[in-house]
Amino acid sequence: MLTLASDFGSPYPAAMKGVILSRTDARLIDIAHDLPRQDVRSAAFWLRETIPYFPPAIHLAVVDPGVGTDRRAIALRIGEHALVGPDNGLCRPVARVLAASTAAPTATADTAAPTATADTAATDVAIEAFEITVADPASTTFHGRDVFAPAAADIHAAGVDRIESVGPAAPITGIEPIALGSCVDLRFPEPTTEDGVIHGEVLAVDDFGNVITNVPAEWLGEHRPATVVCNTERVPLVETFAAVAAGQRLVTVGSHGFLECAVNRGRGDDVFGLGTGDAVRFERPQ
Amino acid sequence: MLTLASDFGSPYPAAMKGVILSRTDARLIDIAHDLPRQDVRSAAFWLRETIPYFPPAIHLAVVDPGVGTDRRAIALRIGEHALVGPDNGLCRPVARVLAASTAAPTATADTAAPTATADTAATDVAIEAFEITVADPASTTFHGRDVFAPAAADIHAAGVDRIESVGPAAPITGIEPIALGSCVDLRFPEPTTEDGVIHGEVLAVDDFGNVITNVPAEWLGEHRPATVVCNTERVPLVETFAAVAAGQRLVTVGSHGFLECAVNRGRGDDVFGLGTGDAVRFERPQ
Amino acid sequence: MLTLASDFGSPYPAAMKGVILSRTDARLIDIAHDLPRQDVRSAAFWLRETIPYFPPAIHLAVVDPGVGTDRRAIALRIGEHALVGPDNGLCRPVARVLAASTAAPTATADTAAPTATADTAATDVAIEAFEITVADPASTTFHGRDVFAPAAADIHAAGVDRIESVGPAAPITGIEPIALGSCVDLRFPEPTTEDGVIHGEVLAVDDFGNVITNVPAEWLGEHRPATVVCNTERVPLVETFAAVAAGQRLVTVGSHGFLECAVNRGRGDDVFGLGTGDAVRFERPQ
Repeated sequence: MLTLASDFGSPYPAAMKGVILSRTDARLIDIAHDLPRQDVRSAAFWLRETIPYFPPAIHLAVVDPGVGTDRRAIALRIGEHALVGPDNGLCRPVARVLAASTAAPTATADTAAPTATADTAATDVAIEAFEITVADPASTTFHGRDVFAPAAADIHAAGVDRIESVGPAAPITGIEPIALGSCVDLRFPEPTTEDGVIHGEVLAVDDFGNVITNVPAEWLGEHRPATVVCNTERVPLVETFAAVAAGQRLVTVGSHGFLECAVNRGRGDDVFGLGTGDAVRFERPQ
Repeated sequence: MLTLASDFGSPYPAAMKGVILSRTDARLIDIAHDLPRQDVRSAAFWLRETIPYFPPAIHLAVVDPGVGTDRRAIALRIGEHALVGPDNGLCRPVARVLAASTAAPTATADTAAPTATADTAATDVAIEAFEITVADPASTTFHGRDVFAPAAADIHAAGVDRIESVGPAAPITGIEPIALGSCVDLRFPEPTTEDGVIHGEVLAVDDFGNVITNVPAEWLGEHRPATVVCNTERVPLVETFAAVAAGQRLVTVGSHGFLECAVNRGRGDDVFGLGTGDAVRFERPQ
Repeated sequence: MLTLASDFGSPYPAAMKGVILSRTDARLIDIAHDLPRQDVRSAAFWLRETIPYFPPAIHLAVVDPGVGTDRRAIALRIGEHALVGPDNGLCRPVARVLAASTAAPTATADTAAPTATADTAATDVAIEAFEITVADPASTTFHGRDVFAPAAADIHAAGVDRIESVGPAAPITGIEPIALGSCVDLRFPEPTTEDGVIHGEVLAVDDFGNVITNVPAEWLGEHRPATVVCNTERVPLVETFAAVAAGQRLVTVGSHGFLECAVNRGRGDDVFGLGTGDAVRFERPQ
């Protein structure tokens, strides 16, 4: 199985699929090709929230503002999973989640959400890094097709456990182990508390307009209030969208395990005026 | 085979696919993930117009404004097909079409359009209903991933004919037969005639902007006029878009078997000023 | 393997897939379903830039402003590939590229870009044309579902080398050889030079807003200047987007082998004011 994720829109992913299927007979599953364009951090968030649900697979992920520069092409191996993409931090958060579940398999039931704390866990030990070296890729601007697709395909063909045996097969010259510490890291900002106020940040806005913050549900404590103050506004803290009337604001624990600012049958980003990277504060009402 | 349909946009469907593929080795086919958001009736229309073309399969369908409330999760079995989704009427119209073709298989050639009248046929006898019970789903807001995907996967793994044997396997506790009559029904509005005027309603607007009404082609009678009056406008009644000049209005019998208001190389919804749910009247010109 | 490309948006392609899977057990791969709507030339460009990367397959391609008129349904066979679609020129450019690589297989490595000159090569000899005849298709407006999908499925089931054995199987009555010369041809405009000025045209604008011209990289000569004049503007000629600051214009050799007008982390079409079909001139700065 080989999953594909990118910010390529359409129809460029088809060229990647053609290249892959010319090299190996993999089952292909799209994660998404409309990841936030050239926004490595948001894309890394979405990879972390989707890929851990998959059985062992090769995961090709390309959001690559530095394409054609000397940033490396890398693969990260975590157990039977391999992540293939540019060395810009894109795959580090999901690699940590996969590593955490490899280390503690009982922690993740089939449908369990990735734990919000995995991002900071000392799980890097379970991640092996490799550099993918290439010669004369066909373009300097579409390494998804010309570098990462052939690399992912050849890793799939060889098997994840034989990743170092890949190549040479043009344009791939080889895949060699490197120190994980030499790879670009990427960590999501952590929320903080001060005087009972939680200071968080918006990690992503989803297709529904739901504003996903970095504040884990547990930070509200055991006895959750019926309302929270979000920035300056009192908002119901509810379990379901339908708990408030259509068009009304709500704060809920989203499917990612974080507080989300949303609107029943509306767009939270518009109504709350919040976007990716914005600061957001939560506190119990006085 | 397992088809997926939702209003989840991107990349949430990928999480559903990961959950499914972690539980069963199904071939996955996307129906659509941009079904009209939280619009159960329109989504039900599109399911009815696409799923009947498929060979027997498990069909996962989630447009679910009531997620997290006490609306049930259900499965409908029609012959070798099973539909899995929320109990909000979403799957009833397509279930009736599948039931009609099961009852009278000769009526549907491989590429025959679902008959417009199937919606009102007394076909419910061929539909078996089941309640899917769950314990502690991982979220209250993403049952596509946490309830319906595992249920559909496990029905696929067990086989449609053994649907009652599914579970327990977290989070699914079991699947039990229920009375179809206890499930939410959903029927599309029927057109009426009065003094030679057909009073219909817009069922959906497609991606091209074509306005799909609920008026079956047969209602025009055997001898179709060359023009019809649509609301207050005389419009050519044609067989192909190319029969009128680019930018011109037309009424045609669309691929669903209903009258459609369209514009050659343009958007019918804009030019006719019509949207889903709007009334539309047709009559022969005086 | 069976690939699908159309301008149908969503969810109509699902009906095509259902029809196909009811007739043959093909692996389905989407090229794109958001090809430029009813724009045969742009769609033909994207087919040419994606399909040649695939291993031998049946390729279903439908962008069909003349649906329901007497334009023919055709198949083009090139070695082990078959292209199925309307006779409007849509598949001719990609057919020529496939024919060129069939004729000279060593010319195309797995990830080599289609050569920009293939469009004009005398490769038609390797292309066999067939007419697909049908009786009573279920609609006059959705031949993707009612004509092309069944034809592509039945060619897949029969095998590309036995294409003439297909049918009758409703709605397909048969597939017969015809002269390629009787089919609609489509060729992209060729650039010209005059007094050191290259006069080109925009072939397509991609999802990133990159403006893809018809000027092959080689036309710049061996010693490429550091800047070019694009229309009236001096613009850096660079190998990577990251070579200029965010928001700055650039000209680069795109992944298609042609000059592209782009903006690092921005939209070239907006900033250059260029769209499909527009004239564009390049010259060395004085």
